[in-house]
Amino acid sequence: MALDVVSQPDALAAALAETARLVEAQLEALLPVPEGAEAKLVEAMRYAVLNGGKRMRAFLVIEVAKLFAVNRTCAARVAASVEMLHAYSLVHDDLPAMDDDDLRRGQPSCHKKFDEATAILAGDALQTRAFEVLAEEDTHADPEARVELVLALAGASGMRGMVGGQMIDMESEGKDLTGPEITRLQALKTGRLIQYAAEAGGILGRAPAPQRQAIMAYGRDLGAAFQIYDDVLDETASAEEMGKTAGKDAAAGKATMVRILGLARARAQAEMLAEQAAGHLDVFGERAALLQALAQFTVSRRS
Amino acid sequence: MALDVVSQPDALAAALAETARLVEAQLEALLPVPEGAEAKLVEAMRYAVLNGGKRMRAFLVIEVAKLFAVNRTCAARVAASVEMLHAYSLVHDDLPAMDDDDLRRGQPSCHKKFDEATAILAGDALQTRAFEVLAEEDTHADPEARVELVLALAGASGMRGMVGGQMIDMESEGKDLTGPEITRLQALKTGRLIQYAAEAGGILGRAPAPQRQAIMAYGRDLGAAFQIYDDVLDETASAEEMGKTAGKDAAAGKATMVRILGLARARAQAEMLAEQAAGHLDVFGERAALLQALAQFTVSRRS
Repeated sequence: MALDVVSQPDALAAALAETARLVEAQLEALLPVPEGAEAKLVEAMRYAVLNGGKRMRAFLVIEVAKLFAVNRTCAARVAASVEMLHAYSLVHDDLPAMDDDDLRRGQPSCHKKFDEATAILAGDALQTRAFEVLAEEDTHADPEARVELVLALAGASGMRGMVGGQMIDMESEGKDLTGPEITRLQALKTGRLIQYAAEAGGILGRAPAPQRQAIMAYGRDLGAAFQIYDDVLDETASAEEMGKTAGKDAAAGKATMVRILGLARARAQAEMLAEQAAGHLDVFGERAALLQALAQFTVSRRS
Repeated sequence: MALDVVSQPDALAAALAETARLVEAQLEALLPVPEGAEAKLVEAMRYAVLNGGKRMRAFLVIEVAKLFAVNRTCAARVAASVEMLHAYSLVHDDLPAMDDDDLRRGQPSCHKKFDEATAILAGDALQTRAFEVLAEEDTHADPEARVELVLALAGASGMRGMVGGQMIDMESEGKDLTGPEITRLQALKTGRLIQYAAEAGGILGRAPAPQRQAIMAYGRDLGAAFQIYDDVLDETASAEEMGKTAGKDAAAGKATMVRILGLARARAQAEMLAEQAAGHLDVFGERAALLQALAQFTVSRRS
């Protein structure tokens, strides 16, 4: 049954909730608590990755994989893997030496719930487990596909991706960055992992090159829209809605597109990018309706 | 030319030095410093991994790979990868929230040379790069071999390996562990990565199962010998020789085999394990002489 335009927000909400259930069940299965003193480590890993969240990255993996009729469990495993990678980055980001955030989604951040040493180790082991899950045979019958997933995740999350972006972000505090510099920073820090999540669905589906390119372009523009709109929310939303300290980036003198463009033009830019993202998926017809609705949702959410 | 027994220590020293040159050239090539503010991240990664060290793990990869006539560059890449993984664990271990060590091999530890946030990120990105290098096509023509390397490294270094062992170690401070508990702790914390290094050479060489098992047994006993002898050194060596604060484990009330067995019996236990390790390689004849010499060296080194 094709989705009509009016029902899309409801359909998206239902699909996001379904994804959250699926990926959380998978995370539970992939992170069993062992006997012995190392139990605390796995409890901290589970606390960090099973604390709610929209599961947007998981949703991207699963919905793109559906375009290519990928086995549901395989997609859920890759979705769980990217949520682990994302959770590790948040745990380390929140540490006192980094952003020093006591709250994450309205709950104590990992180092407040446990302690700093445990949070460092939990982040480390979440990263390891993310790569391990991708390499396991249950993720895809073809080892070539598994290796491609590992390579794509490493490229998106390492020194040329997310962590590189975090370094630039830290080095840029108090500096006046240009628009293109902010765009590059955000592409590395947030955009590439979002793009990877979409790409991963295409890798699982052994998508042919033109379709892979359309998905990559969607992921790129969606990621850019997401980050600009995050800056908008940081200026406008209340701490309660964000589940973290609002207005913090501006207070820290962090470079944001809102600072460069102003609130209204930044919002318009995010909306334009979201529309552009959705457009890349027109080649898939109605089957991409939920992914297109996600782009729309990305620039209209309240947290 | 077969090595005679008398010349082995010299041959080992020469081979270790040659391995260090080879792996350090590979590390330089695998960690090029980029333009832009993320340069600092890669400089910290290079600082952490190019600071000397015996390169024992690299040596294990390369020497075992030689048993199976593996291409030298492929082996050097995997050797560089395990050194990156090892360096990441040291950078995070030295952080104030963990062991709080200002010195590493006689030099300022990464967070002293740079800052804590940079050290956290450098460790994170070293881990990512370690997995990325294994998955890259240049590491092995067969994707199955690359996936096996990723799986083996993740198993050895994550929640069921090194990081799990670090958690047990932290949770055990001030507690009286039994001998078997200490053995398990050390196997996870240090042993499994050493064992992985040997195993990786066998994976690269597509070694048949019986030879793989001999190599795994060698790696297991070598790792155990190494850690017990490390405890011996921690009690006996000076800070200058160790390049780090000596006697620190004992002062922190950490469980060590020296505490359980006493110095002489701990030393004897390490020597027994080293001999046992060497014995597993008898099936390879003279070709394993350097690996057997390494086992001997492991329990006679002064730092």
